[in-house]
Amino acid sequence: LSSTRRPSERRREDSRPRRPHHDLSRDEHKALTRQALLRAALRLLSKNSFDSISLREVTREAGLSPTAFYRHFDDMEELGLELVSEAFSTLRDMLRSARSDPSLVEDVINRSVEVLSDHLEAHEAHIRFIARERHGGVRRIRAAIAKELAEVTGELAGDFAVFPLINKWPDEDRFLLANLFVEFMTGVAGAMVDAEPAARAGIAERSQRQLRLIVVGVTGWKP
Amino acid sequence: LSSTRRPSERRREDSRPRRPHHDLSRDEHKALTRQALLRAALRLLSKNSFDSISLREVTREAGLSPTAFYRHFDDMEELGLELVSEAFSTLRDMLRSARSDPSLVEDVINRSVEVLSDHLEAHEAHIRFIARERHGGVRRIRAAIAKELAEVTGELAGDFAVFPLINKWPDEDRFLLANLFVEFMTGVAGAMVDAEPAARAGIAERSQRQLRLIVVGVTGWKP
Repeated sequence: LSSTRRPSERRREDSRPRRPHHDLSRDEHKALTRQALLRAALRLLSKNSFDSISLREVTREAGLSPTAFYRHFDDMEELGLELVSEAFSTLRDMLRSARSDPSLVEDVINRSVEVLSDHLEAHEAHIRFIARERHGGVRRIRAAIAKELAEVTGELAGDFAVFPLINKWPDEDRFLLANLFVEFMTGVAGAMVDAEPAARAGIAERSQRQLRLIVVGVTGWKP
Repeated sequence: LSSTRRPSERRREDSRPRRPHHDLSRDEHKALTRQALLRAALRLLSKNSFDSISLREVTREAGLSPTAFYRHFDDMEELGLELVSEAFSTLRDMLRSARSDPSLVEDVINRSVEVLSDHLEAHEAHIRFIARERHGGVRRIRAAIAKELAEVTGELAGDFAVFPLINKWPDEDRFLLANLFVEFMTGVAGAMVDAEPAARAGIAERSQRQLRLIVVGVTGWKP
């Protein structure tokens, strides 16, 4: 008789003390499995590019069966798009807190590179994924990254209004500068993830001096 | 009896008019096969990243057997390194002719981007390969690209001596600028290969204006 009962009914009858993960609701358990798949993919992507890893490799790395994958994602591209969105969500959090940091306005050159270095230390796998897949082999992922970078660029063009000089510039020129800044910082991030940790300070220092040259350009710019 | 003769002996006896590829020497034939493998790999790499394509796919695309591959390359990495070296060889040819082009010194901003666009039109597959594998999944290929870019940067720092202003700068600052320029142009090239052909003129125009801002920075720079 008991075998005809649904698992949820059986679980409700169980009155023994439960082990931690039995305490999880169905939704919580589902979210954990989804996270396990994303984390497993990100681990594999620290060495390989996205179009070289298979669904089977991801589930094996996560200790799950291939069928478990399909309860969370339609295919590998959907998982990849989720990673893009995760990576830019943490990047936006960083930009949001940078916006309310007065030291950044006072010393935009040094602090920008410092903020990027700190972010990279905390989210290296995400940044490497973006640097690698930005021009990678999957068109939809390239397009998603380009879209996110365009949004960040647009927001930054708005943020530049706090600087008296740029404040007076036409929108087009502010966008031009925001794009130059985003491209520059993306390049710096790419160089840093590829470098040995010991070489990163040197890249940071060089980038700060280059940013200084760009700022000299900004102060002399006639829109 | 004839079946015991070596193919080369049989060929020498053959007095019929020969088809063109029978005229090729053994070395010429070998070079052609090598080229067929490199071209086949480059075709596959127009869509996929390097670590996602297999030796078997390359030989199939070239219409050769997998064993034929090993007469030319030890493994796929060796083929990849050859593609890096090919791509930078055409890039250096371009830079060499740019060096002797007076219009480039007169109008470095517009001409630099034009020269890059022309080069990209002629060597799109190579440029895409470099943009993609620069941060790609194969360490030795990333390292080879970084080394080539560092050499181009060093040469460019020397070339900058033709500009009176930069001529007086210490080597370190000239290198800083050369690195900024190479990073900027690499970014532009990456954006162009990913864009629809119709969008490339817009990227070129934006890049020229951004390069103008950098040049304003150069004129105001205190080394």
